[in-house]
Amino acid sequence: MSKLVIVGTVAFDAIETPFGKTDKILGGAATFIGLAASQFNIDASAISIVGGDFPQDYLDLLAQRNINISGIEIVKEGKTFFWSGRYHNDMNSRDTLATELNVLADFNPVVPTAYRNAEIVMLGNLHPMVQSSVLDQMEVKPKLVILDTMNFWMDTALDDLHNVIKRVDVITINDEEARQLTGEYSLVVAARKIHEMGPKYVVIKKGEHGALLFHHDNVFYAPALPLEEVFDPTGAGDTFAGGFAGYIAQTGDISFENMKKAIIYGSTLASFCVEKFGTERMIDLQHHEIQKRLKQFKTLTQFEIELT
Amino acid sequence: MSKLVIVGTVAFDAIETPFGKTDKILGGAATFIGLAASQFNIDASAISIVGGDFPQDYLDLLAQRNINISGIEIVKEGKTFFWSGRYHNDMNSRDTLATELNVLADFNPVVPTAYRNAEIVMLGNLHPMVQSSVLDQMEVKPKLVILDTMNFWMDTALDDLHNVIKRVDVITINDEEARQLTGEYSLVVAARKIHEMGPKYVVIKKGEHGALLFHHDNVFYAPALPLEEVFDPTGAGDTFAGGFAGYIAQTGDISFENMKKAIIYGSTLASFCVEKFGTERMIDLQHHEIQKRLKQFKTLTQFEIELT
Repeated sequence: MSKLVIVGTVAFDAIETPFGKTDKILGGAATFIGLAASQFNIDASAISIVGGDFPQDYLDLLAQRNINISGIEIVKEGKTFFWSGRYHNDMNSRDTLATELNVLADFNPVVPTAYRNAEIVMLGNLHPMVQSSVLDQMEVKPKLVILDTMNFWMDTALDDLHNVIKRVDVITINDEEARQLTGEYSLVVAARKIHEMGPKYVVIKKGEHGALLFHHDNVFYAPALPLEEVFDPTGAGDTFAGGFAGYIAQTGDISFENMKKAIIYGSTLASFCVEKFGTERMIDLQHHEIQKRLKQFKTLTQFEIELT
Repeated sequence: MSKLVIVGTVAFDAIETPFGKTDKILGGAATFIGLAASQFNIDASAISIVGGDFPQDYLDLLAQRNINISGIEIVKEGKTFFWSGRYHNDMNSRDTLATELNVLADFNPVVPTAYRNAEIVMLGNLHPMVQSSVLDQMEVKPKLVILDTMNFWMDTALDDLHNVIKRVDVITINDEEARQLTGEYSLVVAARKIHEMGPKYVVIKKGEHGALLFHHDNVFYAPALPLEEVFDPTGAGDTFAGGFAGYIAQTGDISFENMKKAIIYGSTLASFCVEKFGTERMIDLQHHEIQKRLKQFKTLTQFEIELT
């Protein structure tokens, strides 16, 4: 089985949407990435940090999904990273109500020895120096390194971000962030500029409008499944990245053609994530449901046209 | 050859974009619809009205593209409808600088006798009573009636709009307008509500994010081609509708499967329209260029996935 290293937050989230609100629930980039990746036949390890307040039940839940948690450091006297946000009516924008870094402020990730030869590395959204540190610890050059990031690091740690971007093969980034990173409005031009920063593959996430995969002059466009209701978008981007990384790890195929499929898997898993609060939907998600939705994706996008 | 009736404005536009500005140039919904439809092997007739100030050259240009112009009334002592607008930097929003209805204020469309048995009717964006009047004149029930409209008529003539919507098979409408018409944010729910108003097929245009085709529980999603630059979006929606209607008319096939292809043709033609000011790109557009771009659309969206 291919090894997949995942680094990211494991956190508490408190979420308000037009449909309701939650107390502190399980969240974090590594959690969503891990849950999505656990749908594939791979050996995944999550690298993160939590406080003494983090329930053993949550750790057990990840372990039961065959996510190796030996790289999740527990700081007994510390508190777990906490994020709280409120979504607007359109569900496309949100206000951050609270960000308490807590144990994350001094996070020095340690990749478990057994995973230092992993084929695939998924660097979830975190300080770019933490992401770099994970790459430094790899003893064998990974077949594929995927990086997710966000505008916060462009505002606060741009040089560090450029340093890690240089070292990765695939970047996943949302449309507004791609524009911010490059100063270009056209996503085609933005993707080309990001290519020039290092990544051979650029995935631009457009939320309800789907995702674009760029590789030199090749482009692939995966729509998001049109949904009746988006209940809670939290974690959708991470779930997308986890599905992408998990499928690549399972197949061991890093061709453009296979990345298209990985994007479709990512979009499919993300379409489930938004149906309930937090990780709820991802936890009870069954294989046959995924297969059914993949079929919907095919119907949604495939057409026959005769070219002359 | 199938007959296609097109009703809409034939107009002067003056456009400002971040790339430049134009004096009064050829524009109007029927113009863009007609130029797109003229790429197909059909017998199209444009129903519209212009003033004595409208250059014979422009009428000749349409006639040379095999668009029957006997239904374009010329009011010698009147002035042609004029619209002027300025696009913002994102090219997705614009300010209307001037709207001079002129001869359009008293437009009573007359469908030429030879076209009152047309198989396909494309009601371009105009007052809904004008659109209804065209339907009233059809002597044989058309195989398919397609309607395009905009928020302006929702604000000023909602009852008339509902009356014509009831009578059509396909509606093309943009995402914000679908939300305004139904009061629903989710496009899936909005499309269902529009179905209930009459149209069996609902096409929601999302600009740079592509278009959705809804028919009961079936959904098809066509992306817009990611472009380096959108030079001028004017007429893109009409061009899309014209490509859709033209392809349906040429094939005579109103099945959902064929409508998917019609949507792809519409998107393909619209992707050319935005490359230059006004109608400029549509006028010199060649068959082989369209075929090449259709191929790009296939590459952009098609994937192979094994379902288990």
